[in-house]
Amino acid sequence: MSTISRSAKFAERTSRLRASTIREMLKVTQQPNVISFGGGLPAPELFPVAAVAECTAEIMEEIGASALQYSVTQGIPEMRTWVAQRLATQMARDVSADDVLIVNGSQQGLDLLGKIFLDPGDHVLLERPTYLGAIQAFDAYQAQYLSVETDEHGIVPESLERIIERADPLPKFLYLVPTFQNPTGRTLSIERRERIVRICERFEVPIVEDDPYHELRFEGEPLPPLVSFARNGSVIYLGTGSKIVAPGLRIAWLVASDPEVREKLILAKQGADLHSGSLAQYIFHRFVSRREAFARHLEAIVATYRGRRDVMYAALGEFMPESVRFNKPEGGMFLWASVAGIDTTALLERSKEERVVFVPGVSFYPQRDVVESMRLNFSNAGEEKIRVGIERLASVIRSSAR
Amino acid sequence: MSTISRSAKFAERTSRLRASTIREMLKVTQQPNVISFGGGLPAPELFPVAAVAECTAEIMEEIGASALQYSVTQGIPEMRTWVAQRLATQMARDVSADDVLIVNGSQQGLDLLGKIFLDPGDHVLLERPTYLGAIQAFDAYQAQYLSVETDEHGIVPESLERIIERADPLPKFLYLVPTFQNPTGRTLSIERRERIVRICERFEVPIVEDDPYHELRFEGEPLPPLVSFARNGSVIYLGTGSKIVAPGLRIAWLVASDPEVREKLILAKQGADLHSGSLAQYIFHRFVSRREAFARHLEAIVATYRGRRDVMYAALGEFMPESVRFNKPEGGMFLWASVAGIDTTALLERSKEERVVFVPGVSFYPQRDVVESMRLNFSNAGEEKIRVGIERLASVIRSSAR
Repeated sequence: MSTISRSAKFAERTSRLRASTIREMLKVTQQPNVISFGGGLPAPELFPVAAVAECTAEIMEEIGASALQYSVTQGIPEMRTWVAQRLATQMARDVSADDVLIVNGSQQGLDLLGKIFLDPGDHVLLERPTYLGAIQAFDAYQAQYLSVETDEHGIVPESLERIIERADPLPKFLYLVPTFQNPTGRTLSIERRERIVRICERFEVPIVEDDPYHELRFEGEPLPPLVSFARNGSVIYLGTGSKIVAPGLRIAWLVASDPEVREKLILAKQGADLHSGSLAQYIFHRFVSRREAFARHLEAIVATYRGRRDVMYAALGEFMPESVRFNKPEGGMFLWASVAGIDTTALLERSKEERVVFVPGVSFYPQRDVVESMRLNFSNAGEEKIRVGIERLASVIRSSAR
Repeated sequence: MSTISRSAKFAERTSRLRASTIREMLKVTQQPNVISFGGGLPAPELFPVAAVAECTAEIMEEIGASALQYSVTQGIPEMRTWVAQRLATQMARDVSADDVLIVNGSQQGLDLLGKIFLDPGDHVLLERPTYLGAIQAFDAYQAQYLSVETDEHGIVPESLERIIERADPLPKFLYLVPTFQNPTGRTLSIERRERIVRICERFEVPIVEDDPYHELRFEGEPLPPLVSFARNGSVIYLGTGSKIVAPGLRIAWLVASDPEVREKLILAKQGADLHSGSLAQYIFHRFVSRREAFARHLEAIVATYRGRRDVMYAALGEFMPESVRFNKPEGGMFLWASVAGIDTTALLERSKEERVVFVPGVSFYPQRDVVESMRLNFSNAGEEKIRVGIERLASVIRSSAR
């Protein structure tokens, strides 16, 4: 190892392992004829390509240079007002635009939360399993993890209560994806939502609610986000434009009503990159402000993903052996499957050869201690590919089980 | 203080102070008739407004959805190749596109370097005075600072050597802006460039070379960046598109040839925000690839800023009392002035009333121990405004000195 790299910290072994798993998988994905259930990519054919060109032309014509200049750390006022209004409608409760901070994808929101809350060795409460990107963000601050048990209705409140009671020191926050979770596709039941907020408030543990898939509901009634039950700013909310417009704009938002937390987040964002792209914010805002067109755009995404989920669910039922268990999420982009008796990391090696990939479930467990599950993405590939891919995967599983 | 904010760390008093100074100043700047030498804003009338609309239309037509999709953490290959080639020309030495990481403005480069190098309490070597944004970035990692003396030719090598020799523990890196420095406008002499690299290599202290103004040279021969003298990747280089295209795109780059450091930076970037905006990268790349138009665009920026520097320098000579000392930088966006016997923080209060603002020099000293200087930006206001503003400022100084 060279001189300069000896000075650098951040050699986290597990972080590298996770990163390299994903990078290896993405390499395979780029090969022709590989069907990928691996990434968490939206369907690119639904991106508003023509509208982005039109919106940019309008912005350059009407707003001009100030859309290319430095702008305020919190985000452009138009974007913050739009976020506040949309969230207020979902919550049936007022949201102030002052509480909104525009960030570069939810990933940056997680990073900034790590930066303001976490010192090396601090504890964070996570769902078991949890979103991989959150582990990566918090790893950079040398966090330690306490995993809360989940079932098909999300976090088990009794498990949460027991773990917090025994915790010493108290965890810095609970991180969760309550709706169409990444990786499992599960949704926290309405009964549990308020209970979990109350438990955390009782122990004075803040909640970070990551809600990227809220608008991707295929059936059933929308559930109120946890933040709608919060008193005194106990829940920090994360939303994103990546799933409803396009991830390449890197537009997402953090909503925090506690004034101290908000101030620290703004300072942290200022030190991290001054502000999010001005032009990207204007483009995003202009696109979502075409209200009818945006509503139709969202309906098309939901209809397409619903169709793909249905095809994947049906194909799993048709092709998979009995040893494979899987769920039928009511929305989002992922489905979760378990293969009794098979380590899915080893399985991935064999399925790469058969040109079908997924993310082994072990990546979503901070302790890397559960090996028989997998995350299957259904938003990216078309219906025919999904069917063929599941058939291929089933055949790899059958031959592995022998 | 509420429950949730008690959990949060990052209450750095000086960080807040610096942030609030700047925020207060920006508020004043937005008032009509205020002439601002405060911010570090490029001239917006030179932004390529029409070209950005054209480039976006071409990208949506030719590249389409993949310019809106998630992309690789390092940055799109086209951008990395462009950076490598441009830097190679400046250095007269090969640069590999593999060494380039695209970031959201140099500020993010500084943040990622803090993240991979700094544990709480670690020491960083800084110029005295130094760039404010660097202090803000490193403050978030609870760094401590060792200040190296500078004169009109930049860092004094003997001071650097003495401080490193006495340092215990060894500093994690030296951060400097060697060319048209922010805040002083000074340029590190050619004689000192190689010496400083050799000193740091001898003590195995990496150098972070922040070079945002390299292309904004008004006269004289370009000097080779420090990285061109480096052996074994001892210098990490930061460049930016903010000063040559537009800051609102948030496109900048880190160049690191040490493979371990590079790998850690990529991991850190992945955890921080996955990748920089795909569309912004494509727009930037397409604009700079119109080679002749881009060359003319750069010439126009240099000519305009040269003219403004000349006007500011002449006005300072014409209006200021003898007690005011100032320099004539060969490029960049800033000029540095000292007012014997006057605390410029107090002076700013009075000059706000006279509708002219600047940044008090104290903000650029980590220990906040030098109070008689000020940074004057000459890139943003037009020539007539510069003249009027300097005249106003001179009158405030004269009345304060009485």
